[in-house]
Amino acid sequence: MPETGSVGIVTAKYYTFAEPPNAMVLESGAKLGPITLAYETYGQLNPDRSNAVLICHALSGDAHVAGKYHSDDKKSGWWDEMVGPGKAFDTEKYFVICSNVIGGCMGSTGSSSINPATGKPYGLDFPLVTIGDMVRAQAELVRYLGIDQLLAVAGGSMGGMQALDWATRFPDRVRAVIIIAASYHNGAQQIAFHAVGRHAIQSDEEFKNGQYYEGGNPASGLGIARMLAHITYLSDESMNVKFGRRLRGNGSLRFDLGKEFSVESYLDYQGEQFVNRFDANTYLYISKAIDYFDLTREYGSLDAAMTRIRAKTLVLSFSSDWLYPPRQSEEIVYALARQGKDVTYCNIQSDYGHDAFLLEFEVLTKILDGFLKHTLHPERPCTRCIENADKQQFDPPAAAPNSIYSGRRVDYDLIEDLVEENSRVLDIGSGSGELLCRLDRRKKVHGLGLELSQDHVVSAIGCGIAVVQADIDKGLESLPDQSFDYVILSMTLQVLKHPDLVLREMLRVGKKCIVSFPNFGLWRVRLKALALGRAPVTRNLPYAWYQSPNRHVLTIKDFREFCTRLNIRIQKEIPLTTQGVAPFWPNLFAEEALYVISRES
Amino acid sequence: MPETGSVGIVTAKYYTFAEPPNAMVLESGAKLGPITLAYETYGQLNPDRSNAVLICHALSGDAHVAGKYHSDDKKSGWWDEMVGPGKAFDTEKYFVICSNVIGGCMGSTGSSSINPATGKPYGLDFPLVTIGDMVRAQAELVRYLGIDQLLAVAGGSMGGMQALDWATRFPDRVRAVIIIAASYHNGAQQIAFHAVGRHAIQSDEEFKNGQYYEGGNPASGLGIARMLAHITYLSDESMNVKFGRRLRGNGSLRFDLGKEFSVESYLDYQGEQFVNRFDANTYLYISKAIDYFDLTREYGSLDAAMTRIRAKTLVLSFSSDWLYPPRQSEEIVYALARQGKDVTYCNIQSDYGHDAFLLEFEVLTKILDGFLKHTLHPERPCTRCIENADKQQFDPPAAAPNSIYSGRRVDYDLIEDLVEENSRVLDIGSGSGELLCRLDRRKKVHGLGLELSQDHVVSAIGCGIAVVQADIDKGLESLPDQSFDYVILSMTLQVLKHPDLVLREMLRVGKKCIVSFPNFGLWRVRLKALALGRAPVTRNLPYAWYQSPNRHVLTIKDFREFCTRLNIRIQKEIPLTTQGVAPFWPNLFAEEALYVISRES
Repeated sequence: MPETGSVGIVTAKYYTFAEPPNAMVLESGAKLGPITLAYETYGQLNPDRSNAVLICHALSGDAHVAGKYHSDDKKSGWWDEMVGPGKAFDTEKYFVICSNVIGGCMGSTGSSSINPATGKPYGLDFPLVTIGDMVRAQAELVRYLGIDQLLAVAGGSMGGMQALDWATRFPDRVRAVIIIAASYHNGAQQIAFHAVGRHAIQSDEEFKNGQYYEGGNPASGLGIARMLAHITYLSDESMNVKFGRRLRGNGSLRFDLGKEFSVESYLDYQGEQFVNRFDANTYLYISKAIDYFDLTREYGSLDAAMTRIRAKTLVLSFSSDWLYPPRQSEEIVYALARQGKDVTYCNIQSDYGHDAFLLEFEVLTKILDGFLKHTLHPERPCTRCIENADKQQFDPPAAAPNSIYSGRRVDYDLIEDLVEENSRVLDIGSGSGELLCRLDRRKKVHGLGLELSQDHVVSAIGCGIAVVQADIDKGLESLPDQSFDYVILSMTLQVLKHPDLVLREMLRVGKKCIVSFPNFGLWRVRLKALALGRAPVTRNLPYAWYQSPNRHVLTIKDFREFCTRLNIRIQKEIPLTTQGVAPFWPNLFAEEALYVISRES
Repeated sequence: MPETGSVGIVTAKYYTFAEPPNAMVLESGAKLGPITLAYETYGQLNPDRSNAVLICHALSGDAHVAGKYHSDDKKSGWWDEMVGPGKAFDTEKYFVICSNVIGGCMGSTGSSSINPATGKPYGLDFPLVTIGDMVRAQAELVRYLGIDQLLAVAGGSMGGMQALDWATRFPDRVRAVIIIAASYHNGAQQIAFHAVGRHAIQSDEEFKNGQYYEGGNPASGLGIARMLAHITYLSDESMNVKFGRRLRGNGSLRFDLGKEFSVESYLDYQGEQFVNRFDANTYLYISKAIDYFDLTREYGSLDAAMTRIRAKTLVLSFSSDWLYPPRQSEEIVYALARQGKDVTYCNIQSDYGHDAFLLEFEVLTKILDGFLKHTLHPERPCTRCIENADKQQFDPPAAAPNSIYSGRRVDYDLIEDLVEENSRVLDIGSGSGELLCRLDRRKKVHGLGLELSQDHVVSAIGCGIAVVQADIDKGLESLPDQSFDYVILSMTLQVLKHPDLVLREMLRVGKKCIVSFPNFGLWRVRLKALALGRAPVTRNLPYAWYQSPNRHVLTIKDFREFCTRLNIRIQKEIPLTTQGVAPFWPNLFAEEALYVISRES
């Protein structure tokens, strides 16, 4: 990785549009204008205007994503670790834009702005805005900046919702979207937390029906809303590490009703800080916009929404995020996969809860760097796999490290021969993506990998491969019938919990399936079992009985009978040895077997 | 089960004690008196006063646990489904007591009571009370009722904390405790939710530093506290089922800031209802008492607290409870197990979140009925297993349904012979408890079972067996070295993920270990493998390769070599066939093998 740096001193900019009579018609039907958006940009737009990346902020964020306004500013922008030279959003490569949302209070038109009709702040006369309205306003800004198509739109939390809205609303204006810790709509619990926050603000005596700008401030209510929200941003684990049951002061119980636990004073402080920088009405409007966001309402169903998308999508969640749990990201991912879209997904292991998108820089940088690089230059092949191919070196899969390939996967050569050009290929247990990368380079396939290991998924993203992190034993049910030309299961069958179910699912999803597995019918295996009366340990089965990750022992004969019973047609059977294809008596002499199978028509 | 009924019309009772100068000295050092506790009783105390069960209520509960005050009452007591003739707390068998806590506002002395010193309500002059103070006050009531030792103390949430406090504070005054959805101390997130609630009350303008009784009520703050708390009582799943994104009214968006989603108006309603029946100061005091509760502070460590306990303990959690997550219950359970205490644990599968303890009546009734019955009559053997023994019928374990026992577990006879009387026995994979039940009856052992399946755990509790629901592959690390005389692993080795780790752990925990497994070296198995070149299917290995739950194949020879390598001493090797012990060539002729092993000394 190159050395990373700061974007340095930056300037807040403002763009005003929708001057009456050209006011913007909001989703509610109300008209709003003029509209000012506060925004910042970093890096240079390239001559063909193809390197612009829009970053969308979360509920309490702003346009100041990186750098400082003055050299003596204590704080940098809110995602400074992600935006700058050599960083994930590399300002040497990309032209990065971040804009505040309409309805916001950070320089954009919102309810604290002056209503031109009255000369006073809008207050509750400000019309309700939606995520769609925010995105349409951003689209005006992007057009003003001279960009027809964004390279990418990226955002976490509410920013992820905006990215998702961009991809469905303006399919042709964005080549990729990055949706982090977000959802296509809030569930009841998410709405409930917002509702309590809004209730606290609205029942504050100082709220005065939203017209508090001339004196007073519903600070108490806004503070409560922020304290509560803050709990939902952290995980139980991270709070226990950060605060536990520590007491303020000398550590003994005071037996009074004051703020006594460290976590109490921390939340108090968060509330107080927030009240100083954020407008209570804006909290109402933006939290409501988030609660309103619902692609299923807008397009009839999630699948109907996803089918509109033409952009490559990268969906990221965090294992300990309970505000926007991984399950919600997976719903988006599988809807995209069902619609045959280019989707990549990683559920990042993290203890930081929802806040992880503002903290897990290392893994986010690896993932985003790989994803954006291949989005900008889809024609450039992955360098890692090319180097590996030159060295004839591939990592063997974890399940059979000493298999027949000594530094080279013989079955990959065969699979490459079997797969037709431009076909759709699903690789189950895709590892770090070598096979798909190779098929992509040599056969121009449209590939999708399924893989459980986070490290492998991150590697595969670095290859430019579309890969979904998934547990294979339950990973196919969301994919539609016959949606791939080939489904590949290479040396993975024997470690699956339910190989029969997975095979049946493969045949449902794929027109042809390619399966390879170690042959436990090999004469050396059998002879050891008979003569020694022991669970066999051979070169292809290198594990002692108590260490083996192989859940199942099966042979070529077993597999043939299994196919007969399930009405599976064997199109090809290729027994393999270290020397290549086994010439005769495969069940005795093959160390590995490769099959092309399909449904009996 | 007998027909169940209601306790009928009940009367609230009051007990006043600690009249000055005999005021009660609270944990804070402050003196409180006189103290009145509101309480109710149901059923009859038996002549030897051995059938009294105390039920402790949660934060917002009261003494009215069952029945109605008037025949036209709309609502019954808060746990009416659990208390009554033929119910879990069977009032035909048990004398059930429930008391309101001190600091409460449901008839007991609390901050809304008149301070005798001033003739006005205490307000914030009321001293802080702790869970320990609540329990000490209950102990006065129990003594007044003429009961030296309670049969059981039971409670959910804060009630579970009281039960835990009873068991540690008064080890001799309680024979059993039932701790449901509780913890030995609150973590940072639990404190944080309470802290926001308290903050909302205390920052309400009507709060007036707690002296609001003469006019006004911090209803807004208390309402917010309740709305927030209510979210934590439900699970994400149950909220989605109950409310989802449903809107009030005609179902179209209103584009205003009113309460629009069903879940919003539900929470509003919960807040309003609560404000009408509950005192805001009491909410402060009781939530603070819960946050203060910490057995590790009181006794130095959780283990030091648990070692005081002499009662049988039953710990229950709910899978979707995120306010008091199963993890916290497990900490209690393993500390008890480490201290060699009689502990039973079940993590009940439920979508209802923390509220499950007020909703999952069916499974709670099964569990509590079995547990209380055997607590009242420990001398009576379990009727189910006796019947089964008469019929010579035991359920074979799921892993090997067609094993060598045709209706009868041959290995159980052997194990019974091997185990000495009065020894401590850990049964790993204890199923529904038959083996431990039998060893209990015939060898008077002190048994503990570990079992993953909830149904089996519930059955075992019905046997009167101590059993902990646990994943065996990670279940032993909390148990101390050499803490059992025997550790038994019967026909389970081959399904474990990490059999080597489990065996090593068994040898660490147990002085002797008894292991049995199916012998894959059996001649029929081997011959099939050689001759047919297929994964063997025999009577003892009845599964096709793709269906087998057996993760590992091992033989008598494998096991012997494994023992040699790990310095395990084989004290006995007993090869078994359908006819009994195999006379010769065990690896060829035994269908199953049973070992007694220990560490090489």
